[in-house]
Amino acid sequence: MEFEIYLPLILVVFAALITLGYVFVLFRKVSREPINDKKVEGIHRHIHDGAMTFLVREYKLIIPFVAGIGILLTVLGFVPALEGAEGIGWKSAICFVIGALFSAAAGWIGMFIATKANARTAIKARDEGMSGALKVAFSGGAVLGLSVVGFGLLGLSGITLAVYFIMDSISAPIQILTGYSLGCSLIALFARVGGGIYTKAADVGADLVGKLEAGIPEDDPRNPATIADNVGDNVGDVAGMGSDLTESYVGSILSALTMALLTLNASANFAKYLLFPILLCGVGALAAIVSVMIIRAKTWADPHKALNIATYIATAIVVIASVLLSIFYVGDWKLMVCVISGLLAGIGVGFIAELYTSDEYKSVKQIAKESTTGHGTNIIAGVGVGMKSTWLTIACLAAVIAVSYFFGGSYGIALAAVGMLSTVGITVSVDGYGPIADNAGGIAEMSELPGDVRKITDKLDAVGNTTAAIGKGFCIGSATLTSLAFIMSFIEAAKVKILLSDPKVLIGMLIGAMLPYLFSALTIGSVGRAANKMVDEVRAQYEAHPEILEGKMAPDYNRCIDISTRASLREMIVPGVIVLLSPVAAGFVLGSEGLGGLLIGGLVSAIMLAVFMANAGGAWDNAKKYIESGNFGGKGSDAHKAAITGDTVGDPFKDTAGPAMDILIKLMSVVSLVLVPVLAKATCLWDFILSLL
Amino acid sequence: MEFEIYLPLILVVFAALITLGYVFVLFRKVSREPINDKKVEGIHRHIHDGAMTFLVREYKLIIPFVAGIGILLTVLGFVPALEGAEGIGWKSAICFVIGALFSAAAGWIGMFIATKANARTAIKARDEGMSGALKVAFSGGAVLGLSVVGFGLLGLSGITLAVYFIMDSISAPIQILTGYSLGCSLIALFARVGGGIYTKAADVGADLVGKLEAGIPEDDPRNPATIADNVGDNVGDVAGMGSDLTESYVGSILSALTMALLTLNASANFAKYLLFPILLCGVGALAAIVSVMIIRAKTWADPHKALNIATYIATAIVVIASVLLSIFYVGDWKLMVCVISGLLAGIGVGFIAELYTSDEYKSVKQIAKESTTGHGTNIIAGVGVGMKSTWLTIACLAAVIAVSYFFGGSYGIALAAVGMLSTVGITVSVDGYGPIADNAGGIAEMSELPGDVRKITDKLDAVGNTTAAIGKGFCIGSATLTSLAFIMSFIEAAKVKILLSDPKVLIGMLIGAMLPYLFSALTIGSVGRAANKMVDEVRAQYEAHPEILEGKMAPDYNRCIDISTRASLREMIVPGVIVLLSPVAAGFVLGSEGLGGLLIGGLVSAIMLAVFMANAGGAWDNAKKYIESGNFGGKGSDAHKAAITGDTVGDPFKDTAGPAMDILIKLMSVVSLVLVPVLAKATCLWDFILSLL
Repeated sequence: MEFEIYLPLILVVFAALITLGYVFVLFRKVSREPINDKKVEGIHRHIHDGAMTFLVREYKLIIPFVAGIGILLTVLGFVPALEGAEGIGWKSAICFVIGALFSAAAGWIGMFIATKANARTAIKARDEGMSGALKVAFSGGAVLGLSVVGFGLLGLSGITLAVYFIMDSISAPIQILTGYSLGCSLIALFARVGGGIYTKAADVGADLVGKLEAGIPEDDPRNPATIADNVGDNVGDVAGMGSDLTESYVGSILSALTMALLTLNASANFAKYLLFPILLCGVGALAAIVSVMIIRAKTWADPHKALNIATYIATAIVVIASVLLSIFYVGDWKLMVCVISGLLAGIGVGFIAELYTSDEYKSVKQIAKESTTGHGTNIIAGVGVGMKSTWLTIACLAAVIAVSYFFGGSYGIALAAVGMLSTVGITVSVDGYGPIADNAGGIAEMSELPGDVRKITDKLDAVGNTTAAIGKGFCIGSATLTSLAFIMSFIEAAKVKILLSDPKVLIGMLIGAMLPYLFSALTIGSVGRAANKMVDEVRAQYEAHPEILEGKMAPDYNRCIDISTRASLREMIVPGVIVLLSPVAAGFVLGSEGLGGLLIGGLVSAIMLAVFMANAGGAWDNAKKYIESGNFGGKGSDAHKAAITGDTVGDPFKDTAGPAMDILIKLMSVVSLVLVPVLAKATCLWDFILSLL
Repeated sequence: MEFEIYLPLILVVFAALITLGYVFVLFRKVSREPINDKKVEGIHRHIHDGAMTFLVREYKLIIPFVAGIGILLTVLGFVPALEGAEGIGWKSAICFVIGALFSAAAGWIGMFIATKANARTAIKARDEGMSGALKVAFSGGAVLGLSVVGFGLLGLSGITLAVYFIMDSISAPIQILTGYSLGCSLIALFARVGGGIYTKAADVGADLVGKLEAGIPEDDPRNPATIADNVGDNVGDVAGMGSDLTESYVGSILSALTMALLTLNASANFAKYLLFPILLCGVGALAAIVSVMIIRAKTWADPHKALNIATYIATAIVVIASVLLSIFYVGDWKLMVCVISGLLAGIGVGFIAELYTSDEYKSVKQIAKESTTGHGTNIIAGVGVGMKSTWLTIACLAAVIAVSYFFGGSYGIALAAVGMLSTVGITVSVDGYGPIADNAGGIAEMSELPGDVRKITDKLDAVGNTTAAIGKGFCIGSATLTSLAFIMSFIEAAKVKILLSDPKVLIGMLIGAMLPYLFSALTIGSVGRAANKMVDEVRAQYEAHPEILEGKMAPDYNRCIDISTRASLREMIVPGVIVLLSPVAAGFVLGSEGLGGLLIGGLVSAIMLAVFMANAGGAWDNAKKYIESGNFGGKGSDAHKAAITGDTVGDPFKDTAGPAMDILIKLMSVVSLVLVPVLAKATCLWDFILSLL
């Protein structure tokens, strides 16, 4: 038995280390590409420094939260009534800090290299054309993707191995891992929210004052906010997304382990059920490396094709591994059905997002057409498309829940989440490529590289826009399944029957369903306030130095970067604290039942809003691009102006509030899972009041 | 025992008949007011005929649905396995038809008189000033309000009395009443959806082509769509709202009866618990009459004060009655706590709606300010305000659920709904006054009455706008409590334990939460399509006859009315059928458990969307008016243009999709309640699949 557990865990630790080793190799390769253009070098330096400064200040701001929660976990461990609850105590606190560090590291490394790869992509596009540029951009993305997988997996398998070795118990490491998962979640929360506010404050601010007021194009160097806009792409779409998916990845595996522990511990094959998801993800990590190597080895004319092939290869390897592992390792063929259904649902949700947000389909064309009758009809059409897109997405998620439950019970649902996320290495690589290509275009524009360069980066960027929409669908789908698995783990672990007819549950659900709206209102409001500050700053610069607009003087980019940084860091605190404290308050007032209601109410409400906002935002964005490419009057027409309004509204929808929904539901569920032993010992306020009456 | 049941029921039947008698008196009084102005007479004739034509065609279209469901209920009654289930069968089918007829009658009478009172309000404003105009407008609204109460209560008490007399069972009438409630719901569905699409198709179409393209003011007789716009106010805000609240009113009482039957049938006071809500509503009906009489008897300078006093008087009477009935009739003082908490919550939700939608508070001012930076920021700010407004609303609803449950259990929650709706007679009177005052203003404008008249009607209209926002909050609050009580009745009646950890329930909840989004997307899309048709028609008229714009030729109003009518009737079918069939499909695929999940998921999602859309829409509307009153540049400024965009987006939010949410959740719950006995006998598809695996 012991050997059976040690060997697979050691193998997976090695897979994680190999992945991180390859990250190091890629990191060096990308960093060593030369930037032989002074202007490019200068702009790139601004973006890189701005992004890293933001991240360092963000992490500094999070330290008190990490310390506070770590101390709380440690102190709670000394409460006699909570003895034996391994999810609480100093061991869990250490894992919590490791989780926070690893998640932060994945975001840091990914963004560090993304802000190196952007300029190098532009240079490669000039010197070597499409294929060379694609490889650099993709390698940059792969550093992020493989860091997410490498750190996530190293923590999971390493902690399991170490705790198992020390405590000689298989249930202890799983309980302690909730601390690790909480650490990842905490970083993800602030990275997503702070990054989301940053990126859109800069983007909306730059657009409002640049495109609409001063009448200069996007990425024009005369716009003081333009560098902040490019920094924003990195802190939002690279660091934010990296931490988000690290959390989903770790969370899905942990919830599969928890479910196996709670529902399959009587099985003779118990250890194999436990190790199956970990092993599968180990294979997934290696599959991602193989894919990245193949992309780097060959020459590509069509970036879309290259990215698709990378995804196909990694997916195929994981599918084969799931078949072999279920049949020959666990001896339960049904497991592969769960895994593959999750994989298919991930692809399905991504495709549905494309269906509603790509200008090749009718929804986006309809929005473009409605733009001809004005701003109002553009907005109404976009809202309609976003709302409509929920139905296919939910149908897809409902199908995977049904199938995976039929074939694997509650454990099967968690496995579907693992299956969806087993290819996360390559998915994040592809996603991370997007902002690099986008930045490369901006840099090419600002440093006045030859027109061909911009054409290549535009092509890379266009593919990046599609992958971004698909990636957002994937984030939402995986967050849904992960949270669902977490909530089911919470209910199992809390050993409560949560009945829909219980008013505590109903009140919990109502409040849970409200939180995503409140949270969205706060973050959207933050973007508005921060963007207004940006507009004021840019106007002040233009007024003080009219030469800027004539192109005779460089604007002060750093002041704009500083405004975005300060504003986003200040604004992320309130929504962050609400998310952290809501489950705690609900637990103590409404008990475990009410907390369960809060989680489920929050889940269903957050998914709908997330899908609605992501797809409405994507559709508005592409409707604007569709008009810009010459339809319905093209650039400068009234329809175009209306479409810009839609794009402005869609920006905080799809890049701030929407993605934050993923974190909201995951973090609330993992906090609840940690709270289980505490709530089991406490009488909630509701029951106390009832006892008085 | 028998006498104890007969006497209260007979008293309430009398109260209902007295109410309807007073409706008849008011009806004659309003109709007999003379219209001594030819132009007013002509325009009023157009509006009245257009509205009545719409309603007749709408009802004709509903007949097949009523017939189909009636036949289905009858046929199901002959299935041997379903014997003894009184909610199904010919008796229930008859009550279903009565419910449909009564609900339709309330809408019909209310709208008939509203479209008579509008012109008479304008005339009175000219001849007698504020007080006379207020009285006519309010009397028109009171016909609607008292019809809702009179018909609702007559059906409830009459059917209970008759069935009790025939079958000598107290449980039979309550089961049979679900048919009656279903009938009211069906009419409400189509009236709300069809009316909602009509009113906004006309309004948005008229605005797009009139204000924005032709540059003529609202209610200008040169705009061919302007009469359709006035018709729309009536079919949406009068007939639609009347049927909606009839449904809530009947539903809340029925769910209190059902809860009493299911949970209190062992009590010695059982009959009194049953009759308490019916008696209370009987008093509420008489209280409304008293209020209306007082308003009509006195002279009023300030319409706001008059409406408030009417509400206060009725509320005070109901509060006193609830205290006396609970203590001296039932002998359980806790009941009055439930009733009064419901009443307070109704006022609270209304006040919260005002807080976020009135320009006296900061939210609306903030939207107005954000309008200065463009269309995009106006929309973002409005979305933020709407989303933020959910939190206080939910806090208020959660509080009333908690309090009423503490003091009265599940029955207490239903009583809170009854309490909120016990003053519905006066609430609807006040609400119905709004569109009459609005129409009066339009008529005064179009028939070029003296400027003083418009000033009076504007003042009446401004009060109407506030009452409309409060009324919408009230509709949402009452729909929430009613549906909640219905869902709890469903769960009790189905005798199933609906566990949150059950995947069937989870899938049901996901689909339930998605339906309000799909439904909103469909109805919002319908408004867009119909408004576009309206724009095309108006453009065609202007092109064919340029004299129209010069005021030398009357446009063809009837073609526009016809377009709105056809479009709204066609577009209401698909969303209507989705609402009707979803619970049936969910029941057969996912069983009673999954259906319970669908209802709760639908409830929490629909409330949030309803609050969000109603308050965002109201806030945009008033932000525009705030700018028009001279702030941030006033009429014609860029801020004003941006604010018009917000108002255009808000229109289908607050008047089409938002109010339809109320019906969606109520109708799905009542359909489920009817389905209980059928589902109890059937194996659902989910269990069938599980049995195969």
